[in-house]
Amino acid sequence: MPGGGRPVELREAALPELEPDSALLKVELSEVCGTDVHLRDGRLAGVPYPIIPGHVTVGTLEKIRGTIRDVDGRPFSEGDRATFLDVHRTCNQCWHCLVAKASTRCPSRKVYGITYGLADGLCGGWAEYVYLKPGVRCIRMDGVPSELYMAGGCSLPTALHAVERGRVGIAETVLVLGAGPVGLSAIAFSVLSGAVNVLCIGAPDERLANAQQMGANDGLNFMTVGEEDRLAWVRERTNGRGADVTIECTGAPDAVPQAMRFTREAGRVVVVGQYTDHGPTNFNPHLDVNKKHLDVLGCWGSDYSHFHRAMAMLRTERAAALWSKMRLSRYNLATLNEALDAVARGDVVKALVSPTVS
Amino acid sequence: MPGGGRPVELREAALPELEPDSALLKVELSEVCGTDVHLRDGRLAGVPYPIIPGHVTVGTLEKIRGTIRDVDGRPFSEGDRATFLDVHRTCNQCWHCLVAKASTRCPSRKVYGITYGLADGLCGGWAEYVYLKPGVRCIRMDGVPSELYMAGGCSLPTALHAVERGRVGIAETVLVLGAGPVGLSAIAFSVLSGAVNVLCIGAPDERLANAQQMGANDGLNFMTVGEEDRLAWVRERTNGRGADVTIECTGAPDAVPQAMRFTREAGRVVVVGQYTDHGPTNFNPHLDVNKKHLDVLGCWGSDYSHFHRAMAMLRTERAAALWSKMRLSRYNLATLNEALDAVARGDVVKALVSPTVS
Amino acid sequence: MPGGGRPVELREAALPELEPDSALLKVELSEVCGTDVHLRDGRLAGVPYPIIPGHVTVGTLEKIRGTIRDVDGRPFSEGDRATFLDVHRTCNQCWHCLVAKASTRCPSRKVYGITYGLADGLCGGWAEYVYLKPGVRCIRMDGVPSELYMAGGCSLPTALHAVERGRVGIAETVLVLGAGPVGLSAIAFSVLSGAVNVLCIGAPDERLANAQQMGANDGLNFMTVGEEDRLAWVRERTNGRGADVTIECTGAPDAVPQAMRFTREAGRVVVVGQYTDHGPTNFNPHLDVNKKHLDVLGCWGSDYSHFHRAMAMLRTERAAALWSKMRLSRYNLATLNEALDAVARGDVVKALVSPTVS
Amino acid sequence: MPGGGRPVELREAALPELEPDSALLKVELSEVCGTDVHLRDGRLAGVPYPIIPGHVTVGTLEKIRGTIRDVDGRPFSEGDRATFLDVHRTCNQCWHCLVAKASTRCPSRKVYGITYGLADGLCGGWAEYVYLKPGVRCIRMDGVPSELYMAGGCSLPTALHAVERGRVGIAETVLVLGAGPVGLSAIAFSVLSGAVNVLCIGAPDERLANAQQMGANDGLNFMTVGEEDRLAWVRERTNGRGADVTIECTGAPDAVPQAMRFTREAGRVVVVGQYTDHGPTNFNPHLDVNKKHLDVLGCWGSDYSHFHRAMAMLRTERAAALWSKMRLSRYNLATLNEALDAVARGDVVKALVSPTVS
Repeated sequence: MPGGGRPVELREAALPELEPDSALLKVELSEVCGTDVHLRDGRLAGVPYPIIPGHVTVGTLEKIRGTIRDVDGRPFSEGDRATFLDVHRTCNQCWHCLVAKASTRCPSRKVYGITYGLADGLCGGWAEYVYLKPGVRCIRMDGVPSELYMAGGCSLPTALHAVERGRVGIAETVLVLGAGPVGLSAIAFSVLSGAVNVLCIGAPDERLANAQQMGANDGLNFMTVGEEDRLAWVRERTNGRGADVTIECTGAPDAVPQAMRFTREAGRVVVVGQYTDHGPTNFNPHLDVNKKHLDVLGCWGSDYSHFHRAMAMLRTERAAALWSKMRLSRYNLATLNEALDAVARGDVVKALVSPTVS
Repeated sequence: MPGGGRPVELREAALPELEPDSALLKVELSEVCGTDVHLRDGRLAGVPYPIIPGHVTVGTLEKIRGTIRDVDGRPFSEGDRATFLDVHRTCNQCWHCLVAKASTRCPSRKVYGITYGLADGLCGGWAEYVYLKPGVRCIRMDGVPSELYMAGGCSLPTALHAVERGRVGIAETVLVLGAGPVGLSAIAFSVLSGAVNVLCIGAPDERLANAQQMGANDGLNFMTVGEEDRLAWVRERTNGRGADVTIECTGAPDAVPQAMRFTREAGRVVVVGQYTDHGPTNFNPHLDVNKKHLDVLGCWGSDYSHFHRAMAMLRTERAAALWSKMRLSRYNLATLNEALDAVARGDVVKALVSPTVS
Repeated sequence: MPGGGRPVELREAALPELEPDSALLKVELSEVCGTDVHLRDGRLAGVPYPIIPGHVTVGTLEKIRGTIRDVDGRPFSEGDRATFLDVHRTCNQCWHCLVAKASTRCPSRKVYGITYGLADGLCGGWAEYVYLKPGVRCIRMDGVPSELYMAGGCSLPTALHAVERGRVGIAETVLVLGAGPVGLSAIAFSVLSGAVNVLCIGAPDERLANAQQMGANDGLNFMTVGEEDRLAWVRERTNGRGADVTIECTGAPDAVPQAMRFTREAGRVVVVGQYTDHGPTNFNPHLDVNKKHLDVLGCWGSDYSHFHRAMAMLRTERAAALWSKMRLSRYNLATLNEALDAVARGDVVKALVSPTVS
Repeated sequence: MPGGGRPVELREAALPELEPDSALLKVELSEVCGTDVHLRDGRLAGVPYPIIPGHVTVGTLEKIRGTIRDVDGRPFSEGDRATFLDVHRTCNQCWHCLVAKASTRCPSRKVYGITYGLADGLCGGWAEYVYLKPGVRCIRMDGVPSELYMAGGCSLPTALHAVERGRVGIAETVLVLGAGPVGLSAIAFSVLSGAVNVLCIGAPDERLANAQQMGANDGLNFMTVGEEDRLAWVRERTNGRGADVTIECTGAPDAVPQAMRFTREAGRVVVVGQYTDHGPTNFNPHLDVNKKHLDVLGCWGSDYSHFHRAMAMLRTERAAALWSKMRLSRYNLATLNEALDAVARGDVVKALVSPTVS
């Protein structure tokens, strides 16, 4: 990706010299997500173009120099199938890491495929190889098929973090706004956390059908109805009260005040869909927040724990049954521009990328 | 108060027949608060005019029929000095009370001086007597001078609830927006909860001076500076980061998005100043909530625990030293309209009412 | 049950006069649980013998005087199938209810079948009818077969409360000590809350087999191995660390320090099996609590929210699939002494009682 | 300290070669705490004797190689007065750090003066110089007199962590068991967190007098009364209920079950005094934990946040007023054995060490 507003190009790059305790991952699968569309459109600030996108990627450790270990201290071997946390260099020595304990806001953080550019090396998954710098946190794929994992991809830790922020518990009603990968994974994690009634408002109908396969009890296409009718639809399904928890996963600013209105009094709204700046929106602080005694909870990024626990969950049959339903569209390095267009239009649910050119 | 938009009138009313387990409180002091101005201006929905305002009141139990007890089960005696929780009839049998555990949103709640009208009896403190219906929760004034308690008045449980929602802890920085009684009590409770740096943005200068007497480290008059300069002022005093917790106590919708901007990443905003509907405002969901990983927490009403704990706190010397600084203005039943005007203009900090006519 | 240490007798009693807003429930099913054995053996203090045991019961509202409503305010009709919260008279006016917000420790609480005696009326489920006093909280059985509900019975709210206290979340490992009804329900709720690995230590083998049907990944019969081997067994299944959460549901004092040892550092232990006093046990405060940075959480009783949410959960297919596996043994009013003996010996998992004599 | 059970000796050691981004601290004051007595008596496992004790120390940065920064990123200069977090090498890459978020149980942790031995360099404060290895976290002493800080010393982060674990809030009653430095600091932090009634049970009378100077409302010498009378004393001062929170800071195993008994129903017990193994004790799981619905919370170590926030608190007048009351006894390198004996006997409250020999 040479720059904002320009199409992706195929380029050749040399394999890196491995530093001590680093590795080379031969890519099996990467993904195209909504953030990649923002990257292509130049909507994120401070991106070091040219970059190799693809922040979540699975493959095989082809070469290891020195030792890299998992969190249990067990060393990886060449040939192991693995993935890695795209977030790197959380410093553990700044005020955000140590005092606020808000490591996802650590200013030193780097993200593979987003804030690392080509100048930093092979740091994105839309490539044959990814260079795992020293300190990158790897995790084994034991017991998890690559495609199942990539069906969730970057939406796994993001959605798990959101469901955790929303404190979804036994017998709760969860409303998910948005039926993209983050929304679908939020539906699945809500079900796995004990929700008894999971609703989804999104579009198009195909995604809503997919939402129901991934655990939603009902879905509403927002293209066909106005805000008041959406509210009525939610209330009909929640004893007239609104959802216990609403998880906003849309990217549209207006969805945030709607989330407040669709939630019951003293409920929780998680805002996890606003990863780029699409401008302001209106809300009524009296009705939407204060009188409602609402919790509105921003949710930025994820940390290793979300990544680790999402993988552990995928090893269970009941989680595998859900994510195996995610509708996948397959692309390769030669068809990435088509993939970006399809994701931008919402034509595909989850786009996977193979590191081939045909 | 005969109706919205009309001045207060003096009226005579008969003393009530006491029901079993009820009492008659001879009023010593009541108050005029911002909500009373909203009542006078007809800005609250569903008020059963005519009403006797005055929701927080202290006095002497002149007559008790049957038995009324405190939460420890000890009966009150005639002649005891007492106050009572203005909130009545929280039902403990609805979904809000029992499942959501959000009793301040119980639809059965009634509030003395606000949602009880004259037709319900002597249910407001701007009177010589208040009728304490069966089930009203009384608390003894032992060890707390009446004027010290009324200096806090209704702001005590409201502000304590807000500081509790904000989870203010040891060594935190708290920004309070608004220097009315709720703001000043929030400052005091923040200090008492361990905050090391409490800032206040409000107006006029006299109130800011009072804020500093009640524990604020510094104050800014917002009349003199724009939003960007306010932000700069906050950052200079918070290591460039913004406050750990911001408590909005203003009543102005625009203060809510400002509270988000003045708060540090992964911090908390409590919205407790929006008790009436002053219309919508703008915010940027990406910058102000999602990327910031912020908690925005609406805070409605208070329950008996806040009332009980505020009173226990007032029995300590260090709390008494703070609330004794609240600037008081004294009115009586003949000067209530002046009191309402003065409160509406922000000319007085805390207006107390004696049940006399001269 | 005429008194501690004496067998159950069949007695005739008159049907009650209904007070306003009370009802008569025609019993369909009740249960015999471990607490009933303690009652029979005289091991609970302050029981008002003679009593009619049976605290959780389902049936049909045969007669209603006045109005009784559910938490949504909808009135019940005669003929509705219903159950009720055995806990009654939580006062909502004492320090425990209002300040500590620990309503399960409210001193005014009464429990059907345990602290209400025959002198209080038909207040137990081992009978043809139960008198639902004014204020008893009923819940509809819509969508839940009576036998499925009674398969959980009193273990449903107890176990849900315990799992909630343990904050069981996505991808956690839960160890349940004890394979009686509370243990089995705790297993099911752990799975429904997102646990990926649920272990059970109990006896006999039949109960462990039932535990695995209700969601446990593995089970160990403690009769066959000492404490060290149990610890080794747990560690083998938890990456050498111990369980994230251990829920003690045994009744044996020594299980509590074992729960501490079987739990990982900084994990959580819920103590919910010690409903009667079986004397003291030993633990090492340095190794078992302080150095381990452990949370040891007592869990007493349950409130309406647990009861309500358990019922909502049972309306889902995935929960019904779990509790439908609970092994049931059926008794009637003529065979209650056999039921008590069988429960005391652990020969049955869950004993249900029909209000017939043959 | 040459080994367990042997007296401290004076030894000469060479100054270290500084590694990149390390520093040499010229010691101004260090301390002798209870842990040092355990070290001398050989009661801690795995200590790499010979060691230089003294884990909390203040001094002047005499030499810096490369750059060392505070958490705000500001570099230190030679000549700056500073202290440092004794805990080093928390790895931020193991399961404890990243998944459990329990960094005080990270197996890679090293502690100056305790788990670093003489072989690791000048890693203890009972010396003229301390070598600050790369990655050691320093903090400026701006605005805090050295002696005031050392009055708290290692008890500051320990006690703050305990008060935080106990969730001490506005208007609560806190009972502190033990009147050593951790107990006294826990009293002060409880007051600063909003407690209205802080009780202390300890010995001897001099320490109890000091406890009251540091914020306790009342004290009881446990040497003079049995457990039943202690319980009665607590109940008399807590409306018959026991403390909301009890913080055990004694080192005696029997104090832990007593803490359970002295705490109210649904209260919290923090176990922070059991840093070495003094063997088992008895408790009754039914009465002391389950029926009581108690939280018993082990509290191990502290992290940078506690250290940072304790220092921020000390910069306030109200905190300085409390810790300035801590009774200090002064020793030097020649009188360390006397200091250890005095601390072991409880003859001194807080023993400070100057790096001189006379």
